[in-house]
Amino acid sequence: MVEARRLGGRAARKALRAAPLAEEDKAVRPGMHGGRFAPLTDLQVNRINEAVMDVLENIGLSQAIPSCIELLTKAGGKYTSEGRLTFPRSLVEDTVANAARNFELHGRDPKHDMELSSTRVYFGTAGAAVHVVDVDTREYRESKLVDLYNIARIVDNMEHIHFFQRPLVCRDMEIPRELDLNTCYACISGTSKHVGSSWVLPDHFDEAMKMLHIVAGGEKKWRQRPFVSSSSCFVVPPLRFAEDACYVLENTVRAGMPILLLAAGQAGATSPASLAGAVVQEVAETLAGLVYVNLIRKGHPAMIGIWPFVSDLRTGAMSGGSGEQAILMAACGQMGRYYDLPTGIAAGMADSKVPDAQSGFEKGYTTSLAGHSGANLVYESAGMQASLLGVSYEGFVIDNDMLGAVNRSVRGIEVNEDSMSIEVMRDVCVGGPNHFLGHDQTMSLMQKDYIYPEVGDRTSPKEWVEQGSTTVIEKSQAIVGQILSSHYPRYIDDATDEILRAKFPIRLPREAMRAN
Amino acid sequence: MVEARRLGGRAARKALRAAPLAEEDKAVRPGMHGGRFAPLTDLQVNRINEAVMDVLENIGLSQAIPSCIELLTKAGGKYTSEGRLTFPRSLVEDTVANAARNFELHGRDPKHDMELSSTRVYFGTAGAAVHVVDVDTREYRESKLVDLYNIARIVDNMEHIHFFQRPLVCRDMEIPRELDLNTCYACISGTSKHVGSSWVLPDHFDEAMKMLHIVAGGEKKWRQRPFVSSSSCFVVPPLRFAEDACYVLENTVRAGMPILLLAAGQAGATSPASLAGAVVQEVAETLAGLVYVNLIRKGHPAMIGIWPFVSDLRTGAMSGGSGEQAILMAACGQMGRYYDLPTGIAAGMADSKVPDAQSGFEKGYTTSLAGHSGANLVYESAGMQASLLGVSYEGFVIDNDMLGAVNRSVRGIEVNEDSMSIEVMRDVCVGGPNHFLGHDQTMSLMQKDYIYPEVGDRTSPKEWVEQGSTTVIEKSQAIVGQILSSHYPRYIDDATDEILRAKFPIRLPREAMRAN
Repeated sequence: MVEARRLGGRAARKALRAAPLAEEDKAVRPGMHGGRFAPLTDLQVNRINEAVMDVLENIGLSQAIPSCIELLTKAGGKYTSEGRLTFPRSLVEDTVANAARNFELHGRDPKHDMELSSTRVYFGTAGAAVHVVDVDTREYRESKLVDLYNIARIVDNMEHIHFFQRPLVCRDMEIPRELDLNTCYACISGTSKHVGSSWVLPDHFDEAMKMLHIVAGGEKKWRQRPFVSSSSCFVVPPLRFAEDACYVLENTVRAGMPILLLAAGQAGATSPASLAGAVVQEVAETLAGLVYVNLIRKGHPAMIGIWPFVSDLRTGAMSGGSGEQAILMAACGQMGRYYDLPTGIAAGMADSKVPDAQSGFEKGYTTSLAGHSGANLVYESAGMQASLLGVSYEGFVIDNDMLGAVNRSVRGIEVNEDSMSIEVMRDVCVGGPNHFLGHDQTMSLMQKDYIYPEVGDRTSPKEWVEQGSTTVIEKSQAIVGQILSSHYPRYIDDATDEILRAKFPIRLPREAMRAN
Repeated sequence: MVEARRLGGRAARKALRAAPLAEEDKAVRPGMHGGRFAPLTDLQVNRINEAVMDVLENIGLSQAIPSCIELLTKAGGKYTSEGRLTFPRSLVEDTVANAARNFELHGRDPKHDMELSSTRVYFGTAGAAVHVVDVDTREYRESKLVDLYNIARIVDNMEHIHFFQRPLVCRDMEIPRELDLNTCYACISGTSKHVGSSWVLPDHFDEAMKMLHIVAGGEKKWRQRPFVSSSSCFVVPPLRFAEDACYVLENTVRAGMPILLLAAGQAGATSPASLAGAVVQEVAETLAGLVYVNLIRKGHPAMIGIWPFVSDLRTGAMSGGSGEQAILMAACGQMGRYYDLPTGIAAGMADSKVPDAQSGFEKGYTTSLAGHSGANLVYESAGMQASLLGVSYEGFVIDNDMLGAVNRSVRGIEVNEDSMSIEVMRDVCVGGPNHFLGHDQTMSLMQKDYIYPEVGDRTSPKEWVEQGSTTVIEKSQAIVGQILSSHYPRYIDDATDEILRAKFPIRLPREAMRAN
């Protein structure tokens, strides 16, 4: 009897699973609300804020460029005899109060728009890896332009990776101008999700903007829906502005491109070894950037990127997969919520060189705590190995499954009369079958409350052996192969592409962009 | 200049690292305080509690044994015409108010004692795996008694695995009485950490108690420091008592052995598919057990084990590594804190068949959210594969690193004048070297604030290749080999062992317990 019901249930479940799901019925969507993890007490948050204000007002930043000094001193800042620019507390607080918040980051395709409000969480890529790891040979080779395009195409197909900031440096682009331009081009060619990129000199940025205007269909359309943001390393921690990056920053703001104000000190090297000190310094730096941006253009869409990295203090090497890193980033996410500013943090930066168990757990706990902290954007969350020095193609597919599960946990648990299921229990227990297998509730929640992995294995050991004892790497290789041989999107149509290739030194070969 | 300082710093760091650390100076210790992750709002927690009381009072549990019915009805419970035992709300609430809390679980060695109070968190093993996976051949073979002993010896050496509940079923022990006795024997022979075990019949339990009295040096000494607890599956969800287990439970309580009251329904099969419903049912079942235990002996040390497992609703198979599982267990940890009862939950139950990246991330996010929920005991947190069907020797070593990192994140961030580092920043930035590498603070925090993995890799890609491109599995195999060939503890001295072997059917060969 139980078996018959069960088989009936199975067939019904199979049919249900085959039907396509409406977006609003999916168990997870981009932008679930996090924020239920608060590593710091309110008192600690307040105290860190006091320290941040103290640092900005009394230590300040060095190496400001003349235009920055002029903007700040006019607004009440001081330029000290030691060459440091200090930020009055009232200016910082007013900036936080009036800065842009609750804005959207746009995808080329509006279905990928992200609303950066309150504790909404989106997971995406980022990084400046210089290697691609071959998971079969365990070799690290130089990362190239075509890798960036290929990974953009992979991420374009990954449901739980919500945005695409360039994860690697195209080392075959030896001319910096061509590197910057082609990085942006490869990203927007491969995905219609929101893209993040960066530029080393203002001229490079200006040239890319010309390209983006053409792709958008004119400057006006670009400004309506900017689909690329700039990841700006405007500071060189500790507490120093980066000259070239500041020139780029000013042009970015004027061009209407959203900006990620990135402060990425490394604890024990370029920020204090003390975790609390690292938070204080990196928050201070991002708020300095926010003041700067808002003095150029009040209300410009900016995200604070509070990214204190952890060092292995024995060697000075970065350790992005450590427990210290996990808690440090989550604390930064919490600080971002305190200011109610669009906030990006980084997680998923495995130290392991390959997508093995170490890589998995490092990514698992860092992305999970980051997501639950309620930071709006979790960068670096897919594909990274070797503390950001390498990427793995397969890693993006593996990590997509992980991010789906993490996102499911961020969604949390709905508590209401139906979900508490008292009547269902009564049905089942009092004169019922004593199990919930075929119950209507079970059927109805199968897709609405639960998600299912793409490459993650849930078979029994027996089935697993029968199916070839594959690891998640092997399954991901198959998916990667399938995407790369078939997914050649035309997010830039052929006519526009002709124009771009005539005007700019586009280096991605046409042949790489179509099936053989 | 920077390089010279750095090298000086390295030599100094190396010297510091070589010195042994006092226990109180370690960056993590067993029993850090969690509880900063609260997946449910206070309102949701209250509502779940109301539903729990409703279920206990109005649906109740079936299949109670006569002694249980007698105890409960004398205390105000009702035995309904449908054969269900119901629990008056006041009885449940009074039991929660008066139940034992803030007690210790003892190790054979007092250094392994665990204080189950407030949000202190301890990570350990558990399970009933029936296979051991060979990570080289990817074969699943039957688990045996010697595996249990070997794994106990491995866990005995793992700093971040704080207790040892038996993780596997010894399938070569075909006689149930011998299975139960030898399971307990193998555990206490291999580790001096607190042991959890279980018994299918009361006679088996009584025999094991005789053995434990001998090992402890008499009943009085046993009752002073019981170093074994009973993992009691006293319910068969949904809402049914398990007859044999209830008889064992009664003897356990009378023997002064701490008891884990385990309710392990599987959402969509033996508990509601709705996550909130699964929490309600499993909390209700554990509180029913708590009432039962306290009616036998008021204030007996009991832990509530709220373990709703997740099913893959497409197949009905368990999915312990899912995001649903992660959030569900964390919510149960939060419910345990709400009642301020010693609480155990389960995490780390990877679906993957081998310790690969999938296994890693499944364990990473589940153990992390479990720890941060503030549950006192996190069971299943090391070594498990295949949704609890298998264990991997290497997994215990890999997961030890993970648990160290998770535990470091549970410790959180200290915020005080020193740790906020304003003066350190001033030193470094104003007329200083602009980096923190050789700073006194960096040196002093190297061991007190940071932990270092045993098998986790933090080398650069270049170093990694030079050192043989090893994955974490390969490194763990070396550690496993080293421990198994050298660590033969004598937690039961030879004279006592002779007595045990004369009195009881001990099946672990002496030869397995000494070096060849």
